[in-house]
Amino acid sequence: MSKLTDVPKRILIGRALRSDKLGETLLPKRIALPVFASDPLSSVAYAPGEVLLVLSIAGVSAYHFSPWIAVAVVVLMGTVVASYRQNVHAYPSGGGDYEVATTNLGPKAGLTVASALLVDYVMTVAVSIASGVENLGSAVPFVVEHKVLCAVVVVLLLTVMNLRGVRESGKLFAIPTYVFVGGVFLMIIWGVVRGLMLGDDLTSPTADYTIKPEHQGLAGIALVFLLLRAFSSGCAALTGVEAISNGVPAFRKPKSRNAATTLALMGGLAVTMFCGIIGLAMVSDVHMAENPAKDLFRDGSPVGGAYVQNPVITQVAAAVFGDGTFFFVVLAAATALVLFLAANTAYNGFPLLGSILAQDRYLPRQLHTRGDRLTFSNGIVLLAGAAVLLLVIYGADSTRLIQLYIVGVFVSFTLSQIGMVRHWNRHLATERDQAKRRRMIRSRAINSFGAFLTGVVLVVVLLTKFTHGAWVALLGMVIFYGTMTAIRKHYDRVAAEIAVPDEPTEDSVRPSRVHSIVLVSRLHRPTLRALSYARLMRSDSLEALSINVDPDETKTLRQEWERRGIDVPLKILDSPYREITRPVIEYVKRLRKESPRDAVSVIIPEYVVGHWYEHLLHNQSALRLKGRLLFTPGVMVTSVAYQLESSEAAKKRARRRQNWVAPGAVRRGPVEKRQKEPNGSKEPSGK
Amino acid sequence: MSKLTDVPKRILIGRALRSDKLGETLLPKRIALPVFASDPLSSVAYAPGEVLLVLSIAGVSAYHFSPWIAVAVVVLMGTVVASYRQNVHAYPSGGGDYEVATTNLGPKAGLTVASALLVDYVMTVAVSIASGVENLGSAVPFVVEHKVLCAVVVVLLLTVMNLRGVRESGKLFAIPTYVFVGGVFLMIIWGVVRGLMLGDDLTSPTADYTIKPEHQGLAGIALVFLLLRAFSSGCAALTGVEAISNGVPAFRKPKSRNAATTLALMGGLAVTMFCGIIGLAMVSDVHMAENPAKDLFRDGSPVGGAYVQNPVITQVAAAVFGDGTFFFVVLAAATALVLFLAANTAYNGFPLLGSILAQDRYLPRQLHTRGDRLTFSNGIVLLAGAAVLLLVIYGADSTRLIQLYIVGVFVSFTLSQIGMVRHWNRHLATERDQAKRRRMIRSRAINSFGAFLTGVVLVVVLLTKFTHGAWVALLGMVIFYGTMTAIRKHYDRVAAEIAVPDEPTEDSVRPSRVHSIVLVSRLHRPTLRALSYARLMRSDSLEALSINVDPDETKTLRQEWERRGIDVPLKILDSPYREITRPVIEYVKRLRKESPRDAVSVIIPEYVVGHWYEHLLHNQSALRLKGRLLFTPGVMVTSVAYQLESSEAAKKRARRRQNWVAPGAVRRGPVEKRQKEPNGSKEPSGK
Repeated sequence: MSKLTDVPKRILIGRALRSDKLGETLLPKRIALPVFASDPLSSVAYAPGEVLLVLSIAGVSAYHFSPWIAVAVVVLMGTVVASYRQNVHAYPSGGGDYEVATTNLGPKAGLTVASALLVDYVMTVAVSIASGVENLGSAVPFVVEHKVLCAVVVVLLLTVMNLRGVRESGKLFAIPTYVFVGGVFLMIIWGVVRGLMLGDDLTSPTADYTIKPEHQGLAGIALVFLLLRAFSSGCAALTGVEAISNGVPAFRKPKSRNAATTLALMGGLAVTMFCGIIGLAMVSDVHMAENPAKDLFRDGSPVGGAYVQNPVITQVAAAVFGDGTFFFVVLAAATALVLFLAANTAYNGFPLLGSILAQDRYLPRQLHTRGDRLTFSNGIVLLAGAAVLLLVIYGADSTRLIQLYIVGVFVSFTLSQIGMVRHWNRHLATERDQAKRRRMIRSRAINSFGAFLTGVVLVVVLLTKFTHGAWVALLGMVIFYGTMTAIRKHYDRVAAEIAVPDEPTEDSVRPSRVHSIVLVSRLHRPTLRALSYARLMRSDSLEALSINVDPDETKTLRQEWERRGIDVPLKILDSPYREITRPVIEYVKRLRKESPRDAVSVIIPEYVVGHWYEHLLHNQSALRLKGRLLFTPGVMVTSVAYQLESSEAAKKRARRRQNWVAPGAVRRGPVEKRQKEPNGSKEPSGK
Repeated sequence: MSKLTDVPKRILIGRALRSDKLGETLLPKRIALPVFASDPLSSVAYAPGEVLLVLSIAGVSAYHFSPWIAVAVVVLMGTVVASYRQNVHAYPSGGGDYEVATTNLGPKAGLTVASALLVDYVMTVAVSIASGVENLGSAVPFVVEHKVLCAVVVVLLLTVMNLRGVRESGKLFAIPTYVFVGGVFLMIIWGVVRGLMLGDDLTSPTADYTIKPEHQGLAGIALVFLLLRAFSSGCAALTGVEAISNGVPAFRKPKSRNAATTLALMGGLAVTMFCGIIGLAMVSDVHMAENPAKDLFRDGSPVGGAYVQNPVITQVAAAVFGDGTFFFVVLAAATALVLFLAANTAYNGFPLLGSILAQDRYLPRQLHTRGDRLTFSNGIVLLAGAAVLLLVIYGADSTRLIQLYIVGVFVSFTLSQIGMVRHWNRHLATERDQAKRRRMIRSRAINSFGAFLTGVVLVVVLLTKFTHGAWVALLGMVIFYGTMTAIRKHYDRVAAEIAVPDEPTEDSVRPSRVHSIVLVSRLHRPTLRALSYARLMRSDSLEALSINVDPDETKTLRQEWERRGIDVPLKILDSPYREITRPVIEYVKRLRKESPRDAVSVIIPEYVVGHWYEHLLHNQSALRLKGRLLFTPGVMVTSVAYQLESSEAAKKRARRRQNWVAPGAVRRGPVEKRQKEPNGSKEPSGK
């Protein structure tokens, strides 16, 4: 019971674990399945409906093609799962498609995959939330009446949760996912029992509707094209399958084996649910149209613009359980929740991929190290912003959003599988052990077929969906690709500039002496501390420098200085226009000019305060000056902090912030664990 | 010609002078007059109209009181100008009302004056721009149809100009101000010539309108109250008179004398124009109502909501020059321009007052020193934001906005004059020279009468306008007062905390040794530079510290370190969760704990890049770490910068920024000039 009450508390309060406790959270299979599978499993909530929608264009008679399309999806799913089981064994480090493509096909292919996956994360958020809202709407009409608003609110909720640093909790995922899977299976079994054994007549709410086909009597190439389009839409069920291959390090040992088993389990569940829902939809006479307002007829007249076309899963649930019954509502709620969790996986997946891209210098370095909350936050806000934009533009209509989906997934599927073929070829060239060679040849065959099939699907998806919206996804990929290339170029240029010449030479003008300057405004404890620290450093010469901004204050300072007998010479520079930065910079430059082999050390006393608004009242001149001094060569800038009482508050806050857990931390696993397993790209186990 | 084409260039391009050239820009009287007088002179564009508006409440017959109100305004203006001439002589340092009140009545009175003036700056922007838009609208109907929009656009334009740092140019002020003054005088003379000499019948556009009085046959106390309210509105003509007393240091020598002469000149011009416009309005039968839509009748029926009531100055111009004639358009344009310039004076006055308040620690210190663009910017944005808020709330209606005006002005008038009386009393107590005493007694009499009259007007304004909007201005004053008190309290608390005990004691635990740590991520030029600088400092011990975030990189680093034979020991800390900050902080804390008398010097190599987006790609971990280290006592943090090639761009930008001239710089004058004149509050010249 305590575990159940813990879930809402965790959602609301977002109490995050200290990151040094992360090590204990490696995932057992029963938790890993919901963590990684909420995305692919949840897609059965919309994929079957999309198939029917597209078929309806040729009239309700075309519905009889749907079992064949389901078969094609099952074959594809089987192929993809079998292929990725090879990936998981070959690359246990969790690099995923990006690593496979980069290692075997080169950085450009890798970057293409990365761009595709980034677009995919945005689409996962948009599609899952749109579909979740539609599912929730079948039980709560208010939600579907304010679809865009509700979808945006859900995005914002997830964003705030992730910005606050709610740790991805296995249990949080487990409950709704298992309720959802259990519910769908119960529905399928109960449907079969009622339909076949009890002989009940299952009728969906739209059973007595009729559909006006947009194209009557479609045949030949046009029909084939339509079937391919329907199949493309059904392929939405495959999105998210690749996620496990990124997350191998998060599994308990034996990691690769457990990941492969989870993958197979997930594939099995997904296709069973997909086929079950399609089958029940056929039996219970679900009628869905692409443009229900004008193509769907009730009692001979169009249903009109006010009609809300419920998702196929809730129509089937209404037929099996009865509309508004307890099971119906539970299933609708669980479906919506799993879809929202699927959206949340994108929030966790982005930093994970970002970390790997950052390691290869395609994204800012600090994404690789942990704890820079700001950088993660920027990524999360970018993701959320793009998803909100899409939701608003497409009116949170999952059918329209799905046109943009899938392209990215199949780009990475195809490139990853081609990469795997190369991987096996390379290893077969050197491997002599016959047993291992046989395994490799078998794996290569699987990956070759996977590459072929996913490649064909990619072409089909591009052909059938390009004008329907896939071009938007491609445009997004190009933008990500361009940005990451530019970042990499910048890092490369800087690396070349700062590289040390190979023979161990001295720095061309290595400074021989150092002249220290302590900046002084008034004589108080921070100044005295800075002076005493400066003395400790034993530089070759030491002086105090003050800028005359206010003649009275300067006079007081000079008098105090003498009265206290401070043994550091005090230099005062005039500043007729009350500037501080310019006189200091000019003084330092003059010193450097007079003796170019001397370094200058500028020591600045600083206050440390507890609140940002207090900070506005202090250190502003120091901050500005420091920024400018850094541009002056041969200068080092030292801050000597004086902690005011109020700084205690900030210290506490900083400590609290340090316990923040970056999104994706659980999937990523700790670094030490990674070290222990040989890196796949270098020492393939070839299992 | 070149000077004329220079004006738009200066507005558009905002090419600012180097601040060290500021010294040459002391103002001759002919330039000082427009610089300081655009605010009070421009108010004759709306003050006469406000008088008529209020009188119309008692019906058009009440208009015959307007000459008496004009006389009252003239008397008041004479008194105020005479009073401020004493201020200018007694306080040539330019402290203005704030200094006078603080010195003679104590800091609370001073702060009250400061709050009043700050509110006044906001109101000057709002009222002047609203009125400017209305004047422009009488020539260009589009402007008045989109009043709020146009007003907000003008505020934004002025804000951008001042943020960019356009130097307040004497010439820029001179041309429109002299055109405006010349135009109004031409109008008055031409009106007198036409009306009296040629016997023309001057008829304003509203001459044949009738007014329905809101209160018929008002008499007794109610009438007196109405007349007082009309007088209060007329007092808007006095706003801005005090500006010169802040700006004495900007005048050419003899500063006080020139300032006093300019003040007299300004007062004379203002009252002549005020009376002239009221007189012409009477002669040409201008009809204005407070609620024209329902109280103004044309041909027996109300003019309705679409009617635009043009300002009195343009109605008079239409009567004298003819509507739409060349002179009419020129005068309307000049009026609008002068009003916008008057708004601009608030942008210049705010930093000037802010600088003085900052010196007394009521506002952030950096407002006192120059060149901190950010701080000035915050002030300017605050000013603009408040003005936009008022303009939007009050629909850019100058009549409604004027209700909030004037309160602040008369608070500072009254307190300043009371302060002056105290000033003379104090000096009379010690002065023995009979000639000087006589002058002082005369000055005291003038200031006493000034204090009495402005005090009475303040009471009248409060009584007649409180419910009409003056309470908003008072609320604003309270907010400013509270904020500044809080800031002062913070500075006082900090000052007490950091004050050095009077007997020259040693710091309780003065460190005896220093341990230096160079943070290293990879081995490149910035690292080598930091190492060589660290060696120069000859601390007691020196080590290099690296955080193991990526095992491969750490391995490479260690190999390189050995290969190059670097003579500094390299310590590597593990960080299983790829954190950087926490391990360093913990290591430093451990060092401090082990030997509390040792200081720790952390040396961080930093890249200096040229663009903010490049900065995002570097130094983020260093920045975060520095922030946290400053909270750890006994630590000094040194940045050793490595200037990348792209930093050249930033250097150029910084140089360009340094030439930025803060708003109000011209009025403020250079500090050295101030020093040469004795500070009035300490050595009064008593002239």
